[in-house]
This record gives sequence, structure tokens and C-alpha cells, in this order.
Amino acid sequence: MKPSGEDRAARAGGPWEECFEAAVQLALRAGQIIRKALSEEKRVSTKTSAVDLVTETDQAVEALILSELQERFPSHRFIAEEAAAAGAKCVLTPSPTWIVDPIDGTCNFVHRFPTVAVSIGFAVNQELEFGVIYHCTEERLYTGQRGRGAFCNGQQLQFRETDLSKALVLTEIGPRRDPATLKLFLSNMERLLRTGAHGVRVIGSSTLALCHLASGAADAYYQFGLHCWDLAAATVIIREAGGIVMDTSGGPLDLMACRVVAAGTREMATLVAQALQTINYGRDDER
Amino acid sequence: MKPSGEDRAARAGGPWEECFEAAVQLALRAGQIIRKALSEEKRVSTKTSAVDLVTETDQAVEALILSELQERFPSHRFIAEEAAAAGAKCVLTPSPTWIVDPIDGTCNFVHRFPTVAVSIGFAVNQELEFGVIYHCTEERLYTGQRGRGAFCNGQQLQFRETDLSKALVLTEIGPRRDPATLKLFLSNMERLLRTGAHGVRVIGSSTLALCHLASGAADAYYQFGLHCWDLAAATVIIREAGGIVMDTSGGPLDLMACRVVAAGTREMATLVAQALQTINYGRDDER
Repeated sequence: MKPSGEDRAARAGGPWEECFEAAVQLALRAGQIIRKALSEEKRVSTKTSAVDLVTETDQAVEALILSELQERFPSHRFIAEEAAAAGAKCVLTPSPTWIVDPIDGTCNFVHRFPTVAVSIGFAVNQELEFGVIYHCTEERLYTGQRGRGAFCNGQQLQFRETDLSKALVLTEIGPRRDPATLKLFLSNMERLLRTGAHGVRVIGSSTLALCHLASGAADAYYQFGLHCWDLAAATVIIREAGGIVMDTSGGPLDLMACRVVAAGTREMATLVAQALQTINYGRDDER
Repeated sequence: MKPSGEDRAARAGGPWEECFEAAVQLALRAGQIIRKALSEEKRVSTKTSAVDLVTETDQAVEALILSELQERFPSHRFIAEEAAAAGAKCVLTPSPTWIVDPIDGTCNFVHRFPTVAVSIGFAVNQELEFGVIYHCTEERLYTGQRGRGAFCNGQQLQFRETDLSKALVLTEIGPRRDPATLKLFLSNMERLLRTGAHGVRVIGSSTLALCHLASGAADAYYQFGLHCWDLAAATVIIREAGGIVMDTSGGPLDLMACRVVAAGTREMATLVAQALQTINYGRDDER
């Protein structure tokens, strides 16, 4: 499809357009690799715990994305899931920084449960500029650019507003399974269900859960134990779809705090945050 | 696509082939209606509780399916979700009986969460003969015919075997949200997670969860509070993919007992069943 005059103008308008286009192309290429790998046998190793899994594909996809970006943008910085697992520090400086999750939903991927995404976020001056998330099996490309809207396969995304008492709420279990953490996780789910929320869904991918939210397919999301690479791209998409992403304390989002609430309105996000007990997973930038 | 010689032989071989073909055609037509409705505003009413929802589309789709089947097969009997909600008895006699859920995942449907299916099962002499499930948004048609395998869009389905300690387990919350039921639901989830299972997913559609299982995308499923129309079609698909569907007591499946465990092996299903505390939802044939 040839770009229209408007497209060209939009491209000319964004200082990070070249980076955004690179992210889109890499997400699509990574998605192809992941789809192919889903049809093959996998070798799996464990990361922080027996349920925090990593595959050869996670590592290969991350290596592809980082090597291409480093070559094209040698002055930029990178925060990426597998590099962090290998000991790289997660520090968000004012420099242009790519925040990459090569496979969000690795446990799903290992089980061939078809809810798996590539997530590429980009921040400058510690502010998120764009996010690109690719749902590999359903071939849905979610994008958001600051001030320019959020889209899924070209269709603009728009939050839906509703009451918590009629809400569909999304969450994820998180990687820790010690008895105390599990109790808190389940107690939080109970608190949400007792608000009268229609239901809670657990799909195994934080980024795709947040994309469902931005698409108006759910009303709120909360999680403890996720990482900055799960949140960076999705945060831009949620905000550009008209939603709120904030800390579970009720304060502004802290990308490194391993916890989040998102919803269509500040009121709804605050109600969810107030219902939750904190599960302390530490900080990404203090590991 | 023209049927091959083998296809014709297979068709000639099944005594209920005409019924099976009718079910496939009706599931696809119903799916079209549901996809269209997902893009429109909906009027919603509540059934047994504020979270047990029914829409005009549920009722319209069920009316379409039942009226067509009654015209073509006037001697057959029918069990269907919305008819049961309106007071019709759920009794499985030896007569050829259709067991229909017009929209499985109504709460998802109301929220436009894209995990919604049509489910049509068929039993003769109280034995399930075939099941047809259509994932409306992803346009995946799952079918199973007794003794003739299970398929998704023409591809044969096959269970994967694994240990419970590495399993991905699916469940659903069920319609009741009183504190005692919620406590049991969450306690069961805790028990499963403490076996070391990799994860638990809650996608909001029992039939599609069971189809994921039959596809090898998950390892076990359990639920209390589902109905015979959630189970009938999926049971044939699971069994024909090589899996086990049984009662949470460890005994044979009781289609009317509102509870189920399914897995790739009897051993895995038994381990899951043993981990669970019973939640008593009564029986479909005693309402």
C-alpha cells in the first residue's frame, strides 16, 4: 500500500518515526520466527524459578532484535528481558532506550498455548515515545505513538468506560509461587470478584492482556511481578487509546516497580488499586 | 473443495453423518451472526445472578439452531442453554438428542473479549456421537466424531502428555460468587498451583478451554458449575484427540453433574481430581 499524503506528513512529523518503523518491521520478523518455533519441539530452561521459563527462541529473538537495533542506532541504550536475566542492569537514563520482551507469554509459548507476543517499547528522556506489540499467532499488530493514537492492524483503539461492578478484569499470576505470595495473589482475586466484577481472566501474557484492555475487550488490569519490558510498549498503547496506567499505590506509573493497574478511567483504576494488597517483587532497577 | 473418494466413504460410513454436517453448517452460520453482533451494541439481561448474563444474540442464535434442526429432524430431542434457563427440563433419554450452547463465553461476548464459541453436541442412546465447536472470532472449527478422530480446521488433534508438575491447567470461575463458593474456587486454584503446575489460565469459555486441551495447548482442565451444553460437544473432541474426560470424584463423566476434569491421561486427570475440593452446583437434570 502506498503511503498517502497524510501518512507522509505524519511520518515527517515524528522525530522517532524511523525507530518506530524499525520496531514494527522487527516485531513482524520476530513473530514469524516465533510462529515457526511453535510448530517445533523446544528446549526449555528455567530462569528464576521452575515456572519462570526461557527457551532458545526467547534468546534467539532477543539477539536478532538487539543486534539489528544496535547496528542501526549505535548510540541508543537497551533493556531486554534475557539480557537482564543474564545480569545486565535495567536503568532508564535520558538516552533513547529500547525496552524489549522477545516473547511475552513464554510459559504459553512452551505449552503452545496460542497467546504469545513480541513487545518493543521506546523511551527518550525517560518518557515512553512508542510501543509495538505483535500477537504472533493471531497476527495482530498493536502500535501506539505518543500523541498520535493507538492502533491494531490499522484500526484505531478506543477505551470503553464501565463500572467496576460490571467489569471484566485481567490479571496474571506472576512468577513467584511460594505460599505467602500465592495467598496474596488469590486474596487479591477474591477482593476483585467481591466488588461484583463480571469476571477475572488470566491469559498468560501481560502485554496482550493490556492490548485487550486498549481494544475495549476488558475494563481493568492489575498485576504484581511483571517487568518494565512487559509494560513499556503496552503503556503507550493504553494511554493513546485513552486509558490510564498507574502504580498500585494510586500514584503515577513507576516502570521499574514491578506492579501496575490500568483501566479506562482514573476512577476505575483507583478503585482497583484500593482493592489490592501489595505483593512486593522488588524493583527492576535494583537487581 | 470437492470431496475425495475417501471423504465419500467416510460419509457413507457414519449413521449420523447428515446430522453432523447439519451441525457444522449451523455452527458456521451462528458464528457469522455472533461476529456481526460483536461489532454492535448489545442489550444484556441477567439470568441466575448478576454475572450469569444472557443477550439477545444468545437467544436469537439458539432459536435459529433449534428451529432448523427441529424442521430437519422432527423426531429428535433438544437440550439447550436458553431453553433450560426458560424452564425446559434437561433430560438425556435414549432418543437422538442435540445439546446446544448458542454462545459459550457470554460474559466474554458482552465485553467483546474475543473468546466466544458455538457448541453443538449430539447423543444417541445416552452416548455422545459427535461434537462441533466454532471459535467465532478466530474462525476455528473444532469437530469430533466418535471413533473417527478430532479435528481443527481439518487438522487432526492429538493430546500431549506431560507431568502435573509441568502442566498448564485451565479452569473457569463458575457463575456463583457467594463468599463460600469463591473461597472454594480460589482454594482449588491454590491447590493446583502448589502441585508445581506451570500455570493456571482462565479464558472465560469452558468449551474453548477444552478445545485448547484437545489441541495440545494445555494439559488439564477442571471446573465446577458448568452445564451439559458446555461439555457435550467438547467431550467427544477431547476423547477423539486421545484424552480423558471424567467426574471430579474420579468416576466416569456424568454429563448432568455440573463438574468435570479432563486431561491427556487418566493418571493426570486423577491427580487433578484428587487435588480438588468439591463445589456443589446441583445437577442439570434436577432443576
